[in-house]
Amino acid sequence: MPRPSVSIDRVFHALGDPTRRAIVERLSRGEVSVSKLHAPLNITLAAVVQHLQVLERSGLIHTTKVGRVRTCRIEPKGLTVVERWINDRRALWEKRLDRLGDLLLEDDDQV
Amino acid sequence: MPRPSVSIDRVFHALGDPTRRAIVERLSRGEVSVSKLHAPLNITLAAVVQHLQVLERSGLIHTTKVGRVRTCRIEPKGLTVVERWINDRRALWEKRLDRLGDLLLEDDDQV
Repeated sequence: MPRPSVSIDRVFHALGDPTRRAIVERLSRGEVSVSKLHAPLNITLAAVVQHLQVLERSGLIHTTKVGRVRTCRIEPKGLTVVERWINDRRALWEKRLDRLGDLLLEDDDQV
Repeated sequence: MPRPSVSIDRVFHALGDPTRRAIVERLSRGEVSVSKLHAPLNITLAAVVQHLQVLERSGLIHTTKVGRVRTCRIEPKGLTVVERWINDRRALWEKRLDRLGDLLLEDDDQV
């Protein structure tokens, strides 16, 4: 069994929440200030800030503060970790299906 | 903001746990009985069964019982949901980077 990775736990946990996914979706379209991000969400600003902290700790977003304005942007690292994990599983799984297909073809040859 | 989907919440939540990911990794290499799945994991059989229930409810695995043996196999639906979500985000994000690249090229032309 593979050694569990802390960061991938965090990324999957972060993306398990619909508000946090909505934030990532918004940031995929471009960087935005915390107050603009907050406007369409039906939650308090404090809740938005908490979600942003979870997303930033998991490597999914990056925030910077200039003066009184904090700006958020997507950080590719987090999504890449999930993408790689899924691709690796699919590769194993498809390899197995290929082998099954080969076995079925061999069976056909023997009929 | 997009309408949150229940099933994608479940899939991300299910994959946020290292033991559940280890089970999905094992099943990517082929179907296996619950007792064989249990052997290399340092947890009780009851805990394995609970993890399997979470994975099955989220559409990541499928189990069938024949006699006294329950066999587990990967179910592509769950992984496809995550894959599609990641790909959609990446597509938006890369489109934006392309537009930024175009703007930079236009600026170069004007120099």
